[in-house]
Amino acid sequence: MNEIAFLTPDPDVLARREAIVAGLADLVPTEALVTDPRELVPFETDAFTAYRRVPLAVVLPGTTEEVAAVLAYCAEQGVPVVPRGAGTSLAGGAIPQEDAVVIGVSRMNRILEIDHDNRTCTVQAGVTNLAISDRVAADGFFYAPDPSSQLACTIAGNIGMNSGGAHCLKYGVTTNNLLGAKVVLLDGTIVDLGGKALDAPGLDLLGLLCGSEGQLGIITEATVRLLAKPEGARPVLFGFDSSEVAGACVSEIIGAGIIPVAIEFMDKPAIEICEAFAKAGYPLDVEALLIIEVEGSEAEMDDMLARIIAIARRHGVASIKESQSATEAAQIWKGRKSAFGATGRIADYICMDGTVPLGQLSHVLRETYRIVAGYGLRVANVFHAGDGNMHPLILYDVNDPAEAEKAELAGADILKLCVDAGGCLTGEHGVGIEKRDLMLHQFSETDLNQQMAVRAAFDPGWILNPSKVFPLSFSRQGAS
Amino acid sequence: MNEIAFLTPDPDVLARREAIVAGLADLVPTEALVTDPRELVPFETDAFTAYRRVPLAVVLPGTTEEVAAVLAYCAEQGVPVVPRGAGTSLAGGAIPQEDAVVIGVSRMNRILEIDHDNRTCTVQAGVTNLAISDRVAADGFFYAPDPSSQLACTIAGNIGMNSGGAHCLKYGVTTNNLLGAKVVLLDGTIVDLGGKALDAPGLDLLGLLCGSEGQLGIITEATVRLLAKPEGARPVLFGFDSSEVAGACVSEIIGAGIIPVAIEFMDKPAIEICEAFAKAGYPLDVEALLIIEVEGSEAEMDDMLARIIAIARRHGVASIKESQSATEAAQIWKGRKSAFGATGRIADYICMDGTVPLGQLSHVLRETYRIVAGYGLRVANVFHAGDGNMHPLILYDVNDPAEAEKAELAGADILKLCVDAGGCLTGEHGVGIEKRDLMLHQFSETDLNQQMAVRAAFDPGWILNPSKVFPLSFSRQGAS
Repeated sequence: MNEIAFLTPDPDVLARREAIVAGLADLVPTEALVTDPRELVPFETDAFTAYRRVPLAVVLPGTTEEVAAVLAYCAEQGVPVVPRGAGTSLAGGAIPQEDAVVIGVSRMNRILEIDHDNRTCTVQAGVTNLAISDRVAADGFFYAPDPSSQLACTIAGNIGMNSGGAHCLKYGVTTNNLLGAKVVLLDGTIVDLGGKALDAPGLDLLGLLCGSEGQLGIITEATVRLLAKPEGARPVLFGFDSSEVAGACVSEIIGAGIIPVAIEFMDKPAIEICEAFAKAGYPLDVEALLIIEVEGSEAEMDDMLARIIAIARRHGVASIKESQSATEAAQIWKGRKSAFGATGRIADYICMDGTVPLGQLSHVLRETYRIVAGYGLRVANVFHAGDGNMHPLILYDVNDPAEAEKAELAGADILKLCVDAGGCLTGEHGVGIEKRDLMLHQFSETDLNQQMAVRAAFDPGWILNPSKVFPLSFSRQGAS
Repeated sequence: MNEIAFLTPDPDVLARREAIVAGLADLVPTEALVTDPRELVPFETDAFTAYRRVPLAVVLPGTTEEVAAVLAYCAEQGVPVVPRGAGTSLAGGAIPQEDAVVIGVSRMNRILEIDHDNRTCTVQAGVTNLAISDRVAADGFFYAPDPSSQLACTIAGNIGMNSGGAHCLKYGVTTNNLLGAKVVLLDGTIVDLGGKALDAPGLDLLGLLCGSEGQLGIITEATVRLLAKPEGARPVLFGFDSSEVAGACVSEIIGAGIIPVAIEFMDKPAIEICEAFAKAGYPLDVEALLIIEVEGSEAEMDDMLARIIAIARRHGVASIKESQSATEAAQIWKGRKSAFGATGRIADYICMDGTVPLGQLSHVLRETYRIVAGYGLRVANVFHAGDGNMHPLILYDVNDPAEAEKAELAGADILKLCVDAGGCLTGEHGVGIEKRDLMLHQFSETDLNQQMAVRAAFDPGWILNPSKVFPLSFSRQGAS
């Protein structure tokens, strides 16, 4: 164990803390080091918000070399390090632990290169997801993964969590769109993984980095694939009288080999919440809504839509509404993308993130309603149906501890249901703190031990984001 | 070091060999164990053919459990294990070393499940690449990665090498089409990686497995993504008066965001060789040929082709010829797919496999001609240009040792050129024996040490395919 027992504030511990802060101050400019308790508050938690811990210090380096110096110093001192992007994790991936040093990449926010010949963009790790698409939009390109938090979340965080989004059905998630990364390893070594070429020989450490939740190293730069914007895009609303039938319809569309750019699902509670907020023109007389977006030329869109509509009709679709203008299309997406915020206005909620094989969508939806009702709670479902990536929002009263506990239990039951249906605990939010204990439901001890052996090849002392991803009992084993 | 010094055939060593064979005989049925020297001959090498080594024994298990028993036994005994698919590796990935046990998956060749709801196919590891597409063709589906050896090569080998093919420009390589795998770890533990759901939490060990060249474990089953066959496909021939201009045209097509399903490149020597063999209707009065295949509905194909033709015209294309029938389309592909065999009829050759950023295609082609001419040899280029994945075929006389050495030196120079142009040593053939020493040109020692630390998390004793991928000096370090 390299961790330091910092918990009792005896004089030795206080002296140790001061020494570490002084050590950090030698490595970075004054403005890059945050130690004032008031200034540390924004770093106490992330969008999961279930836990708060004051870190020992926050470092916001301006260069890869500063990251390297700080990480090597922390490793040498045995101080836990929590890497942080924009803190938008919904699974607690960026929540610090007490006496950890947070290394945030938010000041490293420059776009370094747009390479049109190779359709790549190289950015510093703190560049936001949307900033890339914004920069290349005028040239007709975009960066595909589009998490709902894309205005705020950073590329480094996207890589750490292997983030997805509504349009990842067609374009894949972060791992499918990442070509290279500059990464600082625990001892301060700087490595370049991948690059602009199609492939790299040897082990795919770049792929391993995607979804590694800050436990292998700290990302300081990334090279991503740019895609050409399609000629046109058209979201269409399909209303159904039953959630299960809507789920079966999605399954058949995908099973037929049709890949629209997005298939989003909303059940009645979600429709009502979003429509009240965004006035998106959603029908209110249906039980479930699919937003299916097709793209391409007018002929391509017409052709794909015709095939989708034929399948929807076979499933007794109740209403079909095509967007008639760019404004209407934007409005439809605004409704969907505001789902979390709109839900937050009417109730507290926890948002789960499980993924199921598409053939199981109807079954899992039915059981989700049963589970949540069993705890006397309500649920709204709004999710990336084409990917089988479910996001049940379990509504509860945060001021009622009994309800909060029920919500958490219901969430865990739903994730176990996803695993038992052949799916998994997460689609795009990661494991973080939220699901670390559920990992034993997904994996055998052998599986987890093998994952931890790989993790240990980067971080044998369990310094990097140590309390995340693996059940705490396992983390202890892993620390050596 | 767990390896056994088997090299001198003294009585102790002979007794040890017999003991190991006897031990293997206890674990698998008689027909699954090959030890007769004559029957071992086909396993002495692979399609790289540069080296031959007689293994101690070949085991061809029929079940995952047999693989587990054999692997655990070999690990316990410290006997090197070389996993083998169909032996089609062009980089020597399946060449055994002396006194190694080859574990071949060729008898595990059943298709286990076609799941239409989830568009997946689960197969045993020895199923051939083409067998999957053949099985689902009648339902309108296919498995996308299409190496030229697809009639023979196995899914396990495809995963080990992260294989690609002509149509991977649009559909991605093996890692983009693999959803799950059953893998036997060194101690005989059986783990399931991935599954039918979109994502898996924790470290992406499935991604790590792709391209790991048999050094992490032995794959016994795989679940792959099925895709719907497009409505139509149309290969078009574009002739150019210069290879460099053809390369620049490819770069501009991709740079414009147009992704045809394939862009194949042939230079004059390759055109002549393939046309003489396949009578594909290739023009013989041009210096370079692009086969660009578009697919989709007629309207989609027309639209994409119009944009491609406009770019080709700007590059002074000399001739454009669309295939007019399915037969003609098949003929065009037959020419391309026979390139290696047709070349082998007129000369000995080594086929290199490097990948470059597309913007560097013209530069790398020009330098390739210069390098090979400098050694007084000839080269034919036929490759996946849309991916920047080059395959220079260096022609030489295998009976002239001086020429053979020159060919090898020229090949190494070309791969270094690819790396220096921002590309890499391999696109789809892997590192194997062929390129292990060149890895130091691609990676720093730090990079390689980190890769080996990850490898060691699976195989600390350096038992699995020990002499491949890493420079031999490094392998020694890695063995503990």
